[in-house]
Amino acid sequence: MALWSGRFEQSVSEFTQRFGASLEVDKKMARQDIQGSIAHARMLAEQGVITWTDFEHIEVGLLEIENQIRQGRFKYDINDEDIHMSVEGELIEDIGAAGQRLHTGRSRNDQVATDIRLLAKSMLLTLMAENYSLRKVIIRSARKNFGTVMPGYTHMQHAQPVLFSHHLLAYFWMFTRDFKRLNDAYQAADANPLGSAALAGTTYPLDRFRTTELLGFDHPIPNSMDAVSDRDYLLDLLYACSVSMMHLSRLCEEIITWSTTEFGFITLSDEYSTGSSIMPQKKNPDFAELTRGKVGRVYGSLMGLLTTMKGIPLAYNKDLQECKEGAIDAFDTLRDAMICMEGMIDTWTVHEDVMHEEASMGFTAATDVADYLAKRGVPFRKAHEIVGELVLYCEKKHKGLEDLTLKEFRKASPYFSEDIVGELDPEAIARARTTYGGTGHDAVRVQLKEANTQLRRDRNRVKAIRERGGVIE
Amino acid sequence: MALWSGRFEQSVSEFTQRFGASLEVDKKMARQDIQGSIAHARMLAEQGVITWTDFEHIEVGLLEIENQIRQGRFKYDINDEDIHMSVEGELIEDIGAAGQRLHTGRSRNDQVATDIRLLAKSMLLTLMAENYSLRKVIIRSARKNFGTVMPGYTHMQHAQPVLFSHHLLAYFWMFTRDFKRLNDAYQAADANPLGSAALAGTTYPLDRFRTTELLGFDHPIPNSMDAVSDRDYLLDLLYACSVSMMHLSRLCEEIITWSTTEFGFITLSDEYSTGSSIMPQKKNPDFAELTRGKVGRVYGSLMGLLTTMKGIPLAYNKDLQECKEGAIDAFDTLRDAMICMEGMIDTWTVHEDVMHEEASMGFTAATDVADYLAKRGVPFRKAHEIVGELVLYCEKKHKGLEDLTLKEFRKASPYFSEDIVGELDPEAIARARTTYGGTGHDAVRVQLKEANTQLRRDRNRVKAIRERGGVIE
Amino acid sequence: MALWSGRFEQSVSEFTQRFGASLEVDKKMARQDIQGSIAHARMLAEQGVITWTDFEHIEVGLLEIENQIRQGRFKYDINDEDIHMSVEGELIEDIGAAGQRLHTGRSRNDQVATDIRLLAKSMLLTLMAENYSLRKVIIRSARKNFGTVMPGYTHMQHAQPVLFSHHLLAYFWMFTRDFKRLNDAYQAADANPLGSAALAGTTYPLDRFRTTELLGFDHPIPNSMDAVSDRDYLLDLLYACSVSMMHLSRLCEEIITWSTTEFGFITLSDEYSTGSSIMPQKKNPDFAELTRGKVGRVYGSLMGLLTTMKGIPLAYNKDLQECKEGAIDAFDTLRDAMICMEGMIDTWTVHEDVMHEEASMGFTAATDVADYLAKRGVPFRKAHEIVGELVLYCEKKHKGLEDLTLKEFRKASPYFSEDIVGELDPEAIARARTTYGGTGHDAVRVQLKEANTQLRRDRNRVKAIRERGGVIE
Amino acid sequence: MALWSGRFEQSVSEFTQRFGASLEVDKKMARQDIQGSIAHARMLAEQGVITWTDFEHIEVGLLEIENQIRQGRFKYDINDEDIHMSVEGELIEDIGAAGQRLHTGRSRNDQVATDIRLLAKSMLLTLMAENYSLRKVIIRSARKNFGTVMPGYTHMQHAQPVLFSHHLLAYFWMFTRDFKRLNDAYQAADANPLGSAALAGTTYPLDRFRTTELLGFDHPIPNSMDAVSDRDYLLDLLYACSVSMMHLSRLCEEIITWSTTEFGFITLSDEYSTGSSIMPQKKNPDFAELTRGKVGRVYGSLMGLLTTMKGIPLAYNKDLQECKEGAIDAFDTLRDAMICMEGMIDTWTVHEDVMHEEASMGFTAATDVADYLAKRGVPFRKAHEIVGELVLYCEKKHKGLEDLTLKEFRKASPYFSEDIVGELDPEAIARARTTYGGTGHDAVRVQLKEANTQLRRDRNRVKAIRERGGVIE
Repeated sequence: MALWSGRFEQSVSEFTQRFGASLEVDKKMARQDIQGSIAHARMLAEQGVITWTDFEHIEVGLLEIENQIRQGRFKYDINDEDIHMSVEGELIEDIGAAGQRLHTGRSRNDQVATDIRLLAKSMLLTLMAENYSLRKVIIRSARKNFGTVMPGYTHMQHAQPVLFSHHLLAYFWMFTRDFKRLNDAYQAADANPLGSAALAGTTYPLDRFRTTELLGFDHPIPNSMDAVSDRDYLLDLLYACSVSMMHLSRLCEEIITWSTTEFGFITLSDEYSTGSSIMPQKKNPDFAELTRGKVGRVYGSLMGLLTTMKGIPLAYNKDLQECKEGAIDAFDTLRDAMICMEGMIDTWTVHEDVMHEEASMGFTAATDVADYLAKRGVPFRKAHEIVGELVLYCEKKHKGLEDLTLKEFRKASPYFSEDIVGELDPEAIARARTTYGGTGHDAVRVQLKEANTQLRRDRNRVKAIRERGGVIE
Repeated sequence: MALWSGRFEQSVSEFTQRFGASLEVDKKMARQDIQGSIAHARMLAEQGVITWTDFEHIEVGLLEIENQIRQGRFKYDINDEDIHMSVEGELIEDIGAAGQRLHTGRSRNDQVATDIRLLAKSMLLTLMAENYSLRKVIIRSARKNFGTVMPGYTHMQHAQPVLFSHHLLAYFWMFTRDFKRLNDAYQAADANPLGSAALAGTTYPLDRFRTTELLGFDHPIPNSMDAVSDRDYLLDLLYACSVSMMHLSRLCEEIITWSTTEFGFITLSDEYSTGSSIMPQKKNPDFAELTRGKVGRVYGSLMGLLTTMKGIPLAYNKDLQECKEGAIDAFDTLRDAMICMEGMIDTWTVHEDVMHEEASMGFTAATDVADYLAKRGVPFRKAHEIVGELVLYCEKKHKGLEDLTLKEFRKASPYFSEDIVGELDPEAIARARTTYGGTGHDAVRVQLKEANTQLRRDRNRVKAIRERGGVIE
Repeated sequence: MALWSGRFEQSVSEFTQRFGASLEVDKKMARQDIQGSIAHARMLAEQGVITWTDFEHIEVGLLEIENQIRQGRFKYDINDEDIHMSVEGELIEDIGAAGQRLHTGRSRNDQVATDIRLLAKSMLLTLMAENYSLRKVIIRSARKNFGTVMPGYTHMQHAQPVLFSHHLLAYFWMFTRDFKRLNDAYQAADANPLGSAALAGTTYPLDRFRTTELLGFDHPIPNSMDAVSDRDYLLDLLYACSVSMMHLSRLCEEIITWSTTEFGFITLSDEYSTGSSIMPQKKNPDFAELTRGKVGRVYGSLMGLLTTMKGIPLAYNKDLQECKEGAIDAFDTLRDAMICMEGMIDTWTVHEDVMHEEASMGFTAATDVADYLAKRGVPFRKAHEIVGELVLYCEKKHKGLEDLTLKEFRKASPYFSEDIVGELDPEAIARARTTYGGTGHDAVRVQLKEANTQLRRDRNRVKAIRERGGVIE
Repeated sequence: MALWSGRFEQSVSEFTQRFGASLEVDKKMARQDIQGSIAHARMLAEQGVITWTDFEHIEVGLLEIENQIRQGRFKYDINDEDIHMSVEGELIEDIGAAGQRLHTGRSRNDQVATDIRLLAKSMLLTLMAENYSLRKVIIRSARKNFGTVMPGYTHMQHAQPVLFSHHLLAYFWMFTRDFKRLNDAYQAADANPLGSAALAGTTYPLDRFRTTELLGFDHPIPNSMDAVSDRDYLLDLLYACSVSMMHLSRLCEEIITWSTTEFGFITLSDEYSTGSSIMPQKKNPDFAELTRGKVGRVYGSLMGLLTTMKGIPLAYNKDLQECKEGAIDAFDTLRDAMICMEGMIDTWTVHEDVMHEEASMGFTAATDVADYLAKRGVPFRKAHEIVGELVLYCEKKHKGLEDLTLKEFRKASPYFSEDIVGELDPEAIARARTTYGGTGHDAVRVQLKEANTQLRRDRNRVKAIRERGGVIE
């Protein structure tokens, strides 16, 4: 039954009931709704707006409903428009008049805003924790495979040899930025709209700082119209998820490429592979592909909410009902994608020998050969030209640089001496890149240390949120 | 149990099972899957690849499963990856070896492509039929309110008086274009991938023209790799839905504006309004807002699939699994939004008097006054300038143009005579716009006739598709 | 005034002038604007609204301005808001009062709608012609490399051998669908808004069928409010460009992968490669990457216009000014990307030997081995399992299927005989796929013929449009 | 001339030159490029990689080029691929061999990453400063119009009276969040990639901490592969711009609505209005519409870059070239839109009387009447129902609540007494909402104070960045 039916002569038809309903999605925030209602009621009692007896009835009634929900016993009335009506309707049925006083000084507008913010905080905390786990796995793999040399690519062409650990750690830093974005979204969500009522505040002596404390929010929102119409924090969540999915899609692309017969750099475990219904030999990197494909739905949800929010006036408009589904879907998607990625990395087999062999192909030593000349006085641009011609010469002769004789080298430039040979080993080339952030073994060791420090810092942030309490996980 | 497990040593873990599964979405195409399988099996029998006895067992078995699905009795095994595996697994259990021969010369790649195309055709036909209904309602309302004059707006400022019917019919033509786009998407979907197998065709003597006929497709797809990797028709569907939702969002915006206290042009019926949990007086155009808001999710699904398809190589990749959900959601959304719009239009109350009164405010006659001068020899640019100054003069005196004396008119220009009065009545102004496509009464009558002709043409298209058969509605 | 305004050198009006102006973009449709104005003026004279002398002055004046524009001599006044004002202002300066009569019965709203439609038609015709060229190049390459066998991939894993021509032709059909979409957008643009005036039509006796004929439009738009506010055809253009860029991005992805050291399937010509500023050996598939990257800007423009159009009321709103830039940019991007793709394909070197060698790796014969068993009576699902185990056995022994002895085969299943050897050659495997649309040599020959027929059909469409005239190319 | 031509036999054709070029966009970062090169060269000299004499020549040469650029005298060679090649080419021509040493230990990959980050920082600082100005203008207008009562809306229906200042301040807080997002993007950009070379670091003894200091970055990026491929900060910029444009679009929507004849709440100044080419009376809120429309292009650019970044492998790929244009366009758009909004707000005329009159219409007192009952013991849900029926009664009698007699009130509920009259005045209703964040006069005064504090805090952030130096404005 719609609780606002006093004004109407006709009942809302079945179709519009369904079209307007958001119950299915709302179920995800049933616990948040009850949490918010209890805090509101307690504050009402403290402020003398309702009696303590009323509060006790309300609290007991709501906790009983929460129990039923947890145990899957709660019967949602399909005639209810949303979760708020569903829970309140049941409460009134259970405890009578006290239940009818719960909504005093409150509107669905601030109630729903509170529930979504509590849900957003809970989703963001989970994502932050999972992001932490993923980075931990990356560091573990980087450590385990330390020393493995692979071709570094630009434009998918062999560029220079790099440590496989270095390549992996690039993703560590991407996901570190994602953690920051998730945390930014968390902070955006962490403000209390409760007490804003429909749009203008209320004439009841509500204590918004008290509900802020009870619900574990950072501060009450300073403008009631903004409070009921702001959904920025869900955009922030969707944006953070979008960028993180994008980062995952890049890593998936590499996993798929590395798993080809042609590259053969890694083998995914059977657990993270699937077969074909027709081709018996197939072992497909399905989950990497699926994750790459799922970036679309998250981008889509971001674009969807941005579109929905465009050009709508103050304060609450029904358009805002559309804000939840995409955010919940993005949360589910990113969480699962991170778990899946952890599993793929943790169980893959890295073919060190194949990587190493490829690392010396494709003239990956060319830059160092040019640098060799430059360090002996040839201006870099000139050295670059000389080596370019050497490469062309090699290609015509179907040789690698390592196959050239000293005579051939010296024909290209008299600055070459016998020590040029030392410049051609891929491991030595990688090792020589000692600058901060470079791929040299020592530099990567420093990087690993910094990554660990960063990881610890972010773990402490997750801990701190959990310790403050108020976030349903 | 996964049917491709021969090659694997480990079973796929519970998590990846869930992450990789698409069963929930796939259920929507269970009937299409069975329809496709029967056609495939019949053709196999006709071609002598399987025996007729096998075919009969397969057909009976599949029809029994379809029955169970219709009646909600079918038990989907949650371990099944997708609908195809689920149905085939059950079939083998029911009828034994014959069931194991169903998949001969077929791969999940062409099977799933077939199912989705059958589903897309079915969704598109429904949307075309609903689009037809919506336009019928618009014509009905345009007829019913013929003669009602309202202010025409540009920049939301009063521009010139127009017939309300003319304004409504603008939407008729927008939705007519949407019908064409839906039909284009239908044609794109109407091609048969079955027989393409995994990606390369097959060595069995399949007759793809025969399954094309059996399934009611227009033609078989001429390239097997394209057949298993093409999802353009779903993009076409999503695009058609996006533009149609955009058109609806424009009409919703107007309904919302017209329903304000300030405009007061229409009143929505109680059936298509909702109230507030806190404000007893509220009667909100919730469904118009919700429809406007839902444009976001449809745009999002379009963007999502475009993103997913970007840069993936041939032929089938698991990314493609992501193609279905957004399309089904867009279908549901647009169908419901059209039904809802029909209801709003069919039950609204149009306040003719308020519209008429507003139609003369805001100097809506100014263009005709300028034209009056121009027709008497003043170059249009000069006439425009004179009337612009008259309006400024009126604003300062807080008058309308209809309040000016002839003397005041003549002070502005000696070309004004007494007959200027006839140029100031909004109904007369509208009536005078007799050019084809204009808002004059006669012109709008012509337009109504053309609209009807177009509507009949599109109804016949829907009929023709239905008569050809093969589309599950 | 902004506190930070010290850094602004512009006055307020200068700022709003610039912010509101669209002159730079509008220049692209200067010729369309003049074409439209001449048609309008001629019709006005025919209808007796202006004199023939006025018309002659107008026509001469406008043609002179067009001349100046062509020769780059025309001075756009930066104070002009848009191209329409700029040209009309110059005309009035040149020919006086007759120029002031040009705008009779016309508004910038229908004028600009006409210009953009003329421009859209011109852009779409160019894209259709370029799409034709690209497909011609694809057919040429498919013909030239006929017989070359390569590994067909699903999930980027070797699946079954296919003809390289077959793989290429998959793109032919994608681009064929793009041609249809471009043509659909062309038809959407091909309707005449002129004569709709500001939004309501006009009181002048305009003949809209006459301007329709003069400008080469298909028909006049039947509703004046729709005429000035419809931009669907630009969405259609943007959508067609988006899907086509998506198709190109898939081909680019393959070109990039095929060009890696690891695959080595093709070598791009020097003309379509670039080098590195630091690494002398690099030869990068820059243009394939760039095209892949540019899919973003085209998607973005589509999403941009969809967003802009959301929820804006009738009739003209200034928001619509935003419709042009993205469409022109998408046109430029797609045209160049197609030209570039033609060049890459036409000049690449295909390494037949490498492809052929890879075609037999990765157990690509497994499906045919399973089919071999199935044809000898083993139910397909059972056969699939047997071959799956054979593959696992091979992997452990580091063998290919072709390395197995008959004894080993028969150990897996007694149905194997000596003729199994014939099933293992990649070329034979491809050749055996004789079903319509399959990769067998004969099937691909049929496909090539059909592709040619389709191409001729589309060339005739381009010709027919050109012959009808009215489209500035 | 391309500087990497050593390896190539053929020169790049004119078309690909144009297609691949980014010179036009790159010009925007010419000064950043020079700034970066000087820092790199100085560090090279300090580390002994080049001589101090070389450095001096380089610095003098680059400063001379910068001078030429500032004065518009610099001749960009249209054969140059990008700005980096253009400047370096000129330098080598001017100073010879020293110029050829500038690129030592550097690649275009880290060079371009450095330039874009410097540009991004500069754009973000400008946006932060402009955001500050806009909020200052909002506070000024909120102060100036303090006490003006207007109808507060939900669902665009009259809800409860609110202070106009309160409504405006809702936007203050939205823009405050935008400032935070801009600042977050600034911090994301504020890291130094220089010294990462092509992707792997370099063998030269570069001091990356030194260039970090010289260029005013916060810290060097700890992974060289991430450094050359990360464009997250541009996504952050685009996202921050998108949300801010969305906020502006909401305010624009309100400005457009408030400017209608029907609402008549405000009149925009002539400076921020435009007229019509055909309708002499029109005064259009063009700039509000245009800003609302421009949200599309910014969303589009965000979606574009997200698309471009999807699924590209490490490290640098040419796709990344596409990252700049959208970001620069979004910057231009948001900056101008904010300036424009400042102007509109600062010069609009607020019609206090109209707002006040509307504030009492539409039963805006209904909530307070229900609260009146609730405070007298009627459970809120019951009170809500009673007032709903009262409103229905009024509507039928064509009365407002203020027109009811006490008798009529008491017929609805005996809890009504004479003091109900005091609940019906819109100003009193607003004033009574004294809760924190509510619309009551005292509450809004508190809010204004907090807004000011926040504004000062953000101004100090802008100042701090400027004082640290390194950002070209």
